[in-house]
Amino acid sequence: LTRPDPAPLRYGAFRTRDAGARVGAAWRDQVLDLAALARRGVLDDVLPDAERILTQPSLNAFMACGPAVWRALHARLRALLDAQEDLPLLAVRDVEPLLPIEIGDFTELYSSREHASNGGRIMRPDGEPLAPNWTHIPVGYHGRSSSVVVSGTDVRRPFGQARDGDVGRPEFRPSRKIDFELELGFVIGVPSERDRPVTHEEALDHVFGVVLLNDWSARDIQAWEARPLGPFLSKAFATSISAWVMPLEDLLHRRVPPADVQDPEPLAYLRGERWAFDIDLQVALRPAGSGEEHVVSETNARYVYWSLEQQIVHLTSGGAMLRTGDLLGSGAISGPSRGSNGSLLELTWNGTEPLQLADGTQRGFLEDGDEVVLRADGLAECRGRVLPARR
Amino acid sequence: LTRPDPAPLRYGAFRTRDAGARVGAAWRDQVLDLAALARRGVLDDVLPDAERILTQPSLNAFMACGPAVWRALHARLRALLDAQEDLPLLAVRDVEPLLPIEIGDFTELYSSREHASNGGRIMRPDGEPLAPNWTHIPVGYHGRSSSVVVSGTDVRRPFGQARDGDVGRPEFRPSRKIDFELELGFVIGVPSERDRPVTHEEALDHVFGVVLLNDWSARDIQAWEARPLGPFLSKAFATSISAWVMPLEDLLHRRVPPADVQDPEPLAYLRGERWAFDIDLQVALRPAGSGEEHVVSETNARYVYWSLEQQIVHLTSGGAMLRTGDLLGSGAISGPSRGSNGSLLELTWNGTEPLQLADGTQRGFLEDGDEVVLRADGLAECRGRVLPARR
Repeated sequence: LTRPDPAPLRYGAFRTRDAGARVGAAWRDQVLDLAALARRGVLDDVLPDAERILTQPSLNAFMACGPAVWRALHARLRALLDAQEDLPLLAVRDVEPLLPIEIGDFTELYSSREHASNGGRIMRPDGEPLAPNWTHIPVGYHGRSSSVVVSGTDVRRPFGQARDGDVGRPEFRPSRKIDFELELGFVIGVPSERDRPVTHEEALDHVFGVVLLNDWSARDIQAWEARPLGPFLSKAFATSISAWVMPLEDLLHRRVPPADVQDPEPLAYLRGERWAFDIDLQVALRPAGSGEEHVVSETNARYVYWSLEQQIVHLTSGGAMLRTGDLLGSGAISGPSRGSNGSLLELTWNGTEPLQLADGTQRGFLEDGDEVVLRADGLAECRGRVLPARR
Repeated sequence: LTRPDPAPLRYGAFRTRDAGARVGAAWRDQVLDLAALARRGVLDDVLPDAERILTQPSLNAFMACGPAVWRALHARLRALLDAQEDLPLLAVRDVEPLLPIEIGDFTELYSSREHASNGGRIMRPDGEPLAPNWTHIPVGYHGRSSSVVVSGTDVRRPFGQARDGDVGRPEFRPSRKIDFELELGFVIGVPSERDRPVTHEEALDHVFGVVLLNDWSARDIQAWEARPLGPFLSKAFATSISAWVMPLEDLLHRRVPPADVQDPEPLAYLRGERWAFDIDLQVALRPAGSGEEHVVSETNARYVYWSLEQQIVHLTSGGAMLRTGDLLGSGAISGPSRGSNGSLLELTWNGTEPLQLADGTQRGFLEDGDEVVLRADGLAECRGRVLPARR
C-alpha cells in the first residue's frame, strides 16, 4: 500500500537551448512542456490563464492556485499521457532544469529525534543529548533563502572562521568538515494569513509537494559561530533540492504511523492525527576520481518525531505566516542505527570513525570532488559535487 | 559636520485612494509621486525605463539599478525641488505608505557589544557575558522575511510556548514579555555574485539606504525555544521598518570613529577602515490609554562594534550572497549606561526593575495598547502599537 508510484509525474521549471524558462512535468525519462501544452488551449478549463502561469521561471504562480487546481491539472495531464496523444515531450537529457521554486522563507526544522540526540552527544558531550525543550516544541530556525540551488549545481567548499580545539584564536580558512544532511523539503503552495494560525485540519492544503533536500553544512564553522544565535554561514553556502517537485497528493497513500510515540504528550495545540511517510531514503557517495557510487546511509522518512501538520501548526501558532514558495526542511533524518544516519557528522562520529568504502577509500568528511546523491522512492534525486575552495 | 540633513529626501512605495502602488520620495511633509513624474518624461535621461521602474509596489527595481543611477536620480529630484517647478506632490497625510522593499533575506546581526553583553548577563548569569566568538566574528542569524511590516502596522501579541521558571512543563499562552529592539536596518540594492566575496572597498556600493528597524521580540518564548538553534518564532511575529528609506549617500558625511577599539585585532579578512554613524537614536513609549509619549532610551549609532563593511565582508566571505531587497538589521544598539539601551530586556533588567514613567505608569515589558516609536536624526520614524493576543 505504501508502494511508490512507478511513473511519478513531478513538476519543475526548465529551459532548452532554443527557448526560455517555463514550467514542465517530468515523467519517466521525458519532460512534458506545460507551456507548450497550454498554448494549445487544452488546459484552460482546469487552469484558468494557463499559458501565463506556465510560462514562468518557477512553479510559484501555479502553486498559488491551490489544491483544487493542482489536482485538476494533475488529473488532466495523467489522462493526456494515458491517451498517448501527440504531446510536447522532450527528453530529460535535452532540458536544463532550473530551481523549481522561487523561495520565500526557508525554515529548517529539527524533527528527527536520533539526529538531534546524536548532535547533542557530539557537540555537547557533557550535557544531556536533547535540550529540555526538544520533546515539547518542534524546534526550528531560519535558513538563507538565496543559498538554495537546484540539484546538479556544484557546491564550493566555503571559507570561514573555525578553530581546531576549544581554546585559542580562530583561523579564517577553507572548511575542513563539509557534510551533507539528508532531508525532505516541503514546498508551500498556498499562503496563510498573517496572524491566523493554521489548524491541523488545514495544514496539508497549504503544501504543494515534496523534494529531497541536502542542507550542506560546514561543521567546523558551525561549532564556532553558532553560539548563542544558532547556525549562520555554516549552512548558508548551499542547500540543494530536487529539480522536480513530487505532488503531496501522490504521497498521501504512503502515510504510516511514525516510528515512535510522543512522550510527554504534546501541549494541546500540537495534538492531532500523527503520521509519517514510509519513504525509503538513501545517500550515495561517489568519491573524487571514482566512477563508482557507494551507498553510505539507508534510512526511512518514518524516523521523524514531529509530523508535518504539527510543524505547520507550530510555525503559524505565534504570528508567523506561510507564503507561496516557502520551503520547510525536515532537518537531517536519522534512523536508530549507525548506517541509517542522515549526516556524516553522525555516520563518522564527527570524523573520528571514518567510513571505509568498498574501494578502499576512507571518508571522515567530504573531500573536494566528492559527489553526494540523495535518493528516495518516488522523489526526484538531489545531487551535488564539492568544488575546491576558491584560491 | 555630522549634522542631519534638515530636509532629507527619502524613498518608499505608497498608494492613494485613487491610484495603485508606486514609488515616491518623501520630502518635508509631502510625497513626490515619482511614477507621475516619470510619465512626464523628465527622468528618462537619468533612469532609463523610469516609468516602468517607478510604477512598482516596491523600490526593488530601482534599487537594482545601482549607485550611479541612484545618485543621478537623487540629484535630479533635488534640482527639481529646488527649482520649485510644478511637481506632482501629495500631502503625506493623503498617502498610504507600503512596505518599501520586497524583502529577500533578512539577516539579523548582533553588532552592539553592550547589548550582547547585557543579554549574556541576563540570559546566562553563570557564564561569561560574551560568548568567546563574539570579539572575533560578526555574529548573526537569519530572521523571517515575511515578518517584516511597514511602520504604523499594529503588532499582535503572539502566543507561544514558555515556562515561568527553569524547570517544569511549558505552557502555550500569550507572551508576557513583549519587547522592542532599536536597530538600524541596511537595505541592499545591488546583488553580489554567488561565491564571490565582497571586499571592504566594494561593500558600500551594495547598500541602497538605511531605515529604523524594530525587531519585536517575545523574551519568554525566546528563552525557551532558542536552544540550540537560536531564536525562531519569538522574533518572527513582526519586525517593523521605516516607511521611507534614507539613501546611504546622504548619511556618509555622518561617519565618525566608533565608540571603542577592536581588541583583539580582527582576523585579516575583516580588517579595513572602520567607522560608525554619528546618529542620535531615541525610543519613545506611549502607554496604552495615554496621549503622551515618554522617551525611554537615548543612544547613538556609534555604539556598534562591527562596521557595516565588516559585516558585509563577513556575510559574503563563505559562499553566501546578497540580493536586491536583502535587509540587514544591526541588532539592538545599546550605549554604555542604563537609559541608553536598545531593549526593555536591558532597560528593566528582564522586567525586574520596571521603568517609572513621568505620568506614574510602570513598565517591565510592553502592555496591550502600548505604542513604541523609534526616532533618529535624519531617518524616517518607525512606529507600532501592541494589540491584545487573539482570543
